[in-house]
Amino acid sequence: MENILKKNEKIDDLECNNLKIIQDKTGFCFGMDSVILSDFAKNMKKGAKVIDLGTGTGIIATLLCGKTNLSKIYGIEIQEKVADMAKRSIRLNNLEDKFEIINEDIKNIVKILGKNKFDVIVTNPPYKKIDTGIKNENKEKLISRHELTAKLEDFIRVSNELLKNNGEFYMVHKPERLADIIEILRQYKLEPKNIKFVYPNINKGSNIVLIRAVKNGKEFLKIEEPLIVYNENGTYTKNFLKIYNK
Amino acid sequence: MENILKKNEKIDDLECNNLKIIQDKTGFCFGMDSVILSDFAKNMKKGAKVIDLGTGTGIIATLLCGKTNLSKIYGIEIQEKVADMAKRSIRLNNLEDKFEIINEDIKNIVKILGKNKFDVIVTNPPYKKIDTGIKNENKEKLISRHELTAKLEDFIRVSNELLKNNGEFYMVHKPERLADIIEILRQYKLEPKNIKFVYPNINKGSNIVLIRAVKNGKEFLKIEEPLIVYNENGTYTKNFLKIYNK
Repeated sequence: MENILKKNEKIDDLECNNLKIIQDKTGFCFGMDSVILSDFAKNMKKGAKVIDLGTGTGIIATLLCGKTNLSKIYGIEIQEKVADMAKRSIRLNNLEDKFEIINEDIKNIVKILGKNKFDVIVTNPPYKKIDTGIKNENKEKLISRHELTAKLEDFIRVSNELLKNNGEFYMVHKPERLADIIEILRQYKLEPKNIKFVYPNINKGSNIVLIRAVKNGKEFLKIEEPLIVYNENGTYTKNFLKIYNK
Repeated sequence: MENILKKNEKIDDLECNNLKIIQDKTGFCFGMDSVILSDFAKNMKKGAKVIDLGTGTGIIATLLCGKTNLSKIYGIEIQEKVADMAKRSIRLNNLEDKFEIINEDIKNIVKILGKNKFDVIVTNPPYKKIDTGIKNENKEKLISRHELTAKLEDFIRVSNELLKNNGEFYMVHKPERLADIIEILRQYKLEPKNIKFVYPNINKGSNIVLIRAVKNGKEFLKIEEPLIVYNENGTYTKNFLKIYNK
């Protein structure tokens, strides 16, 4: 275990099959959205070939290795330092057989992995448009949070190219971008089939949206049951605790 | 009051400012969706000029007369018999000054009422595509429920033409059509700004969606707090009862 951590890094327990993740104490740390997305995508078919576009420290891919019977997952990450952390988490978790990091821009990945070959894409892309929000953050957080190196449309276009016919696309994003998301998904023949909204509590607007789309799928959208995080008395709801295996 | 009811008709109390509505006992009767839409649209500005596209028996328009300070609302209804019921409800409620029925196809209404003149459109259009669902219903129910005489796109195109710049469009519909709705709204420059989902209970998918769009509005969508109808013990939720003034 000695050399697995670099300066300013820590190991967090994912509380799922004893899996762990290496993160930078000062950088972008995984949040609820990654945990919820891996739960939302957990019913993918056995043996699925999967890609996590913009995997970061590999949190979603690691959780999917614990929650599903996927056969292979590639985590694509443009930032070298972050990709390196993800590689060490793979060793730490003994997942070398099924989880592989590719340190590359998602826009180049079709050339490397080929067209129409994957069953499932999962992605937690940067949420913010370049022209919005505070940008006095370190560069690593900036790339993870803002559409600096790749835009929503890039993530969706690339997903369309990577997926087999009827392949599944899972994304977590901000509800305020939902109109864009739906419009761009349809433009690239990924039909939105299931959408789930997360609400902090029953009296607040949604702050996270989960989307499942199917390549060349038939038109019929289901808005899934809401995921409410807190009860009115401030405790976590039963449905939320279930996601954390509590 | 003697002549106000025809054969097979009844008067229902709307439990709002003593307003009432005439309905055919065997025809299409108003449901929760109309009540919820009128609540969703109730914060329109004082003195608004409003149109209810496909008003049916006038339920939404009647409720809006009770809940808002609108100056004028036109209810457009293609079915003569239904429009006639709505006219009698207007007399019954003494709303002749501000609520007027036009018995006309919505596709002809811009010629009659003019372009870019209205502050607000409300609409509860037929939910079902022509090729879907059971159609052995009477003709009146068919037109109210299926896109026989006008399609979703007609409702949205006409709304764009009737509304002033920054005018508001309020619609209730089925969540399974949401991708279509968003795509068509944007095509006609009605930007989705607020969407609210209604869930039967906390463990069920949404069965009603409310949408507010603004003509030539800026892109930013808010997913409003969920409206849950039933508590887990089967009683109505506080938030639901509030809409019915209970």
